[in-house]
Amino acid sequence: MAEEAAVRAQADTVRRLKQDKADPDEIAKEVAKLLEMKAQLGTDEGKHKFVLKTPKGTRDFGPKEMAIRERAFKAIISCFKRHGAEVIDTPVFELKETLTGKYGEDSKLIYDLKDQGGELLSLRYDLTVPFARYLAMNKITNIKRYHIAKVYRRDNPAMTRGRYREFYQCDFDIAGQFDPMIPDAECLKIVHEILSDLQLGDFVIKVNDRRILDGMFAVCGVPDSKFRTICSSVDKLDKVPWDEVRSEMVGEKGLSPEAADRIGEYVQLHGGLELIERLLQDPKLSQNKLAKEGLGDMKLLFEYLTLFGITGKISFDLSLARGLDYYTGVIFEAVLLQQENEHVEEPVSVGSVAGGGRYDGLVGMFDPKGRKVPCVGVSIGIERIFSILEQRLEASEEKIRTTETQVLVASAQKKLLEERLKLVSELWDAGIKAEILYKKNPKLLNQLQYCEDTGIPLVAIVGEQELKDGVVKLRIVATREEVNVRRESLVEEIRIRTSQC
Amino acid sequence: MAEEAAVRAQADTVRRLKQDKADPDEIAKEVAKLLEMKAQLGTDEGKHKFVLKTPKGTRDFGPKEMAIRERAFKAIISCFKRHGAEVIDTPVFELKETLTGKYGEDSKLIYDLKDQGGELLSLRYDLTVPFARYLAMNKITNIKRYHIAKVYRRDNPAMTRGRYREFYQCDFDIAGQFDPMIPDAECLKIVHEILSDLQLGDFVIKVNDRRILDGMFAVCGVPDSKFRTICSSVDKLDKVPWDEVRSEMVGEKGLSPEAADRIGEYVQLHGGLELIERLLQDPKLSQNKLAKEGLGDMKLLFEYLTLFGITGKISFDLSLARGLDYYTGVIFEAVLLQQENEHVEEPVSVGSVAGGGRYDGLVGMFDPKGRKVPCVGVSIGIERIFSILEQRLEASEEKIRTTETQVLVASAQKKLLEERLKLVSELWDAGIKAEILYKKNPKLLNQLQYCEDTGIPLVAIVGEQELKDGVVKLRIVATREEVNVRRESLVEEIRIRTSQC
Repeated sequence: MAEEAAVRAQADTVRRLKQDKADPDEIAKEVAKLLEMKAQLGTDEGKHKFVLKTPKGTRDFGPKEMAIRERAFKAIISCFKRHGAEVIDTPVFELKETLTGKYGEDSKLIYDLKDQGGELLSLRYDLTVPFARYLAMNKITNIKRYHIAKVYRRDNPAMTRGRYREFYQCDFDIAGQFDPMIPDAECLKIVHEILSDLQLGDFVIKVNDRRILDGMFAVCGVPDSKFRTICSSVDKLDKVPWDEVRSEMVGEKGLSPEAADRIGEYVQLHGGLELIERLLQDPKLSQNKLAKEGLGDMKLLFEYLTLFGITGKISFDLSLARGLDYYTGVIFEAVLLQQENEHVEEPVSVGSVAGGGRYDGLVGMFDPKGRKVPCVGVSIGIERIFSILEQRLEASEEKIRTTETQVLVASAQKKLLEERLKLVSELWDAGIKAEILYKKNPKLLNQLQYCEDTGIPLVAIVGEQELKDGVVKLRIVATREEVNVRRESLVEEIRIRTSQC
Repeated sequence: MAEEAAVRAQADTVRRLKQDKADPDEIAKEVAKLLEMKAQLGTDEGKHKFVLKTPKGTRDFGPKEMAIRERAFKAIISCFKRHGAEVIDTPVFELKETLTGKYGEDSKLIYDLKDQGGELLSLRYDLTVPFARYLAMNKITNIKRYHIAKVYRRDNPAMTRGRYREFYQCDFDIAGQFDPMIPDAECLKIVHEILSDLQLGDFVIKVNDRRILDGMFAVCGVPDSKFRTICSSVDKLDKVPWDEVRSEMVGEKGLSPEAADRIGEYVQLHGGLELIERLLQDPKLSQNKLAKEGLGDMKLLFEYLTLFGITGKISFDLSLARGLDYYTGVIFEAVLLQQENEHVEEPVSVGSVAGGGRYDGLVGMFDPKGRKVPCVGVSIGIERIFSILEQRLEASEEKIRTTETQVLVASAQKKLLEERLKLVSELWDAGIKAEILYKKNPKLLNQLQYCEDTGIPLVAIVGEQELKDGVVKLRIVATREEVNVRRESLVEEIRIRTSQC
């Protein structure tokens, strides 16, 4: 049969790739094809041959990782709520056209869904574009919301440094027509609060403005048509030295060497209010309308940040560009600083942990009549923060509980399964967090060991004698103390002994 | 240019489809193609022409819907935690081969990702297969975990009835080698607790066993090779009358009419312990090894459910089949019952809200050596529950708050933005949930109105006189009462006035 020959040929391909130690992705792809061909043939040989893994750039979160994740989320959500935000959620995929033309050079990293008939779809690349689509679709002109969800980028993963293809973003955005820089300042305050609260060590929040950048490009002699692509080059300055960025500008992007050198002088500058004042006097920049507007607003922003008492961690930095196309005003990025006294062998290079900015044109791109809704927002890049928290927890040897069980219902003798089931059911119905071992006749030692392993603080032991006396023996795992408690007082006793207040 | 001609041709296609009022999906697809072609050409005309919507079968959750969603999740999560479950999370997509051969006839509903180089991926169809993959990959043989996440099915959506293409599942599963039916009984207890807790009205949990079904098929004369496909037909009995199911069996699936009629007699049966006893005496079924095993375990299950006190809502139902291939033992499904005294004009037909069963072979399908890990679990179908809760809330006219803000920092006079910023910053730093309006000089009336609209209970008013006196005027929105509070006592005063205990 022709199909069988095709399967054999495909099997050969897989064998060859494995011998050649080819790219695991490539192997996985060919194995998948082989399995599908076999499935159609109705043979199931080799069904255990596939690669047992999560997709490239993704990971599972086990109970321990989840406990850490929940802690970080809790800090972030309580900050967002402290600032009066509502919460929304959007689908994980959008119409492909919704994402088209929003991300500039990064668009190539968008995951598309296969055309299986119906609409063409893509996985969301961030939470900002779906938010803008949501506002336009529902004609909302005024909202302060947060959104915590996974986004998807076909990037080169670097998982030890917390860079994944599937990762969480925690976004807070303020949409609406307001007086200048008040919502922008609040976004920076939020970043400051969250990074302080999570105790991730020292950090700095770099701030710039797209209008200042564009004005700078103009006075440096960059043609209008090259603004966005030169902006993308500047954006690489946090990873790549100036020399390389310069040669990309001149070589690949056809910028004149003189213009590049003028840019090179500006992008070295960073500072605070005094730098803003100096640039407002800069003979070239001060003549540019955009740059002047941007610098004026930057000054106002610094005044508000002074009232918030956070300028110590803010740096006005002309090299900050941000990759995305949709920013129109203030942009910012928070970077963790490597502690100088941390002489660890393999320091985690964590880089940027939060970023954001103003995007006044994005909603208008979705509105049928082009009506604009000014927006500013911040996105917390939580995966890098997880990496640090995980590392720290591992170093601390703190034992983290992954359940909240208050009591194990146990028995010391055999044939008491029914009694254990009855008691645990009573406790569940009273709202007590309780477990039993799923054995007919478990040994007491095994039951106590289970409590030690999982951190359950109490054991409720039923036995023949206790049943006769109408009591339950309550054992405190930490102290090995045992007390008889009347059955009708058991719930109350467990509540008292496990209450945190 | 050839490209421009192609764009024009594509634009014609779109125009024609719109004139013909074609399927919106179809239009959206062609518009997306057109936009991409235009983007490549560098023209942006028609950029506002696209369809502004979420993908078919999906929806956004606005702040109000989120508030309802959070309530339901809270009830479900607290039940899962009460039963001692840990929590895990897995990626939204899996290698395509991970999902291959797990879902039977439903496999056609799986969303695949586009082949953009690298691995072939599919969106998860449920949380059970990723869980089994997780167990095999990490060699875990013993865990009790919950997982709440979105899954994806290219099904025909019926959104008013809560059927979506993207929807949440709330799964609780127990993996491990244990004594029979103890974990199975706990899963049913959990369904009972959650449905009671959410107060969704009367419900029944139907229970059956794949072994009883298979035994029944055998004694009715169904050939082994047709077990799974006949099982799929039986699964339709909750939506389709027996006549139609019978003609599918005989017509499409080539079952003999006699065998179909024999099945027809069995699938009418439902009841409790007495039905189990009767079938254990059934001359044909009792001769079948599988059926006998299944019935024996069903009897044990009912004994445990009696100890839990929940048999009143449990129905052993021979027509329950469940669509998925991977079940091997007990299966169950919870159905809400339409209240007879509810004479609403358009009653929501809600159907199944939870389902699950035992799947002892699934983990072994992933293990390189085929090692099995027995599992049983339950999945709560939360979208239908949301629909009911949303309807109920709308009917009740209860006003639901979507933020937790405790206090609005306001001013009665102009030129006090700086003072408002200073005060709100102090409150944030003290952990108080506080907001300001983003206006330089907002009117007091607008500030008070904002509190009325959003349910903020307190207003902290700063004015020239208050600043001089070192106080803040605290207004209680509900009573319009105003008191002067010394600035250093403000935080404490707000805490006291907004504490829930």
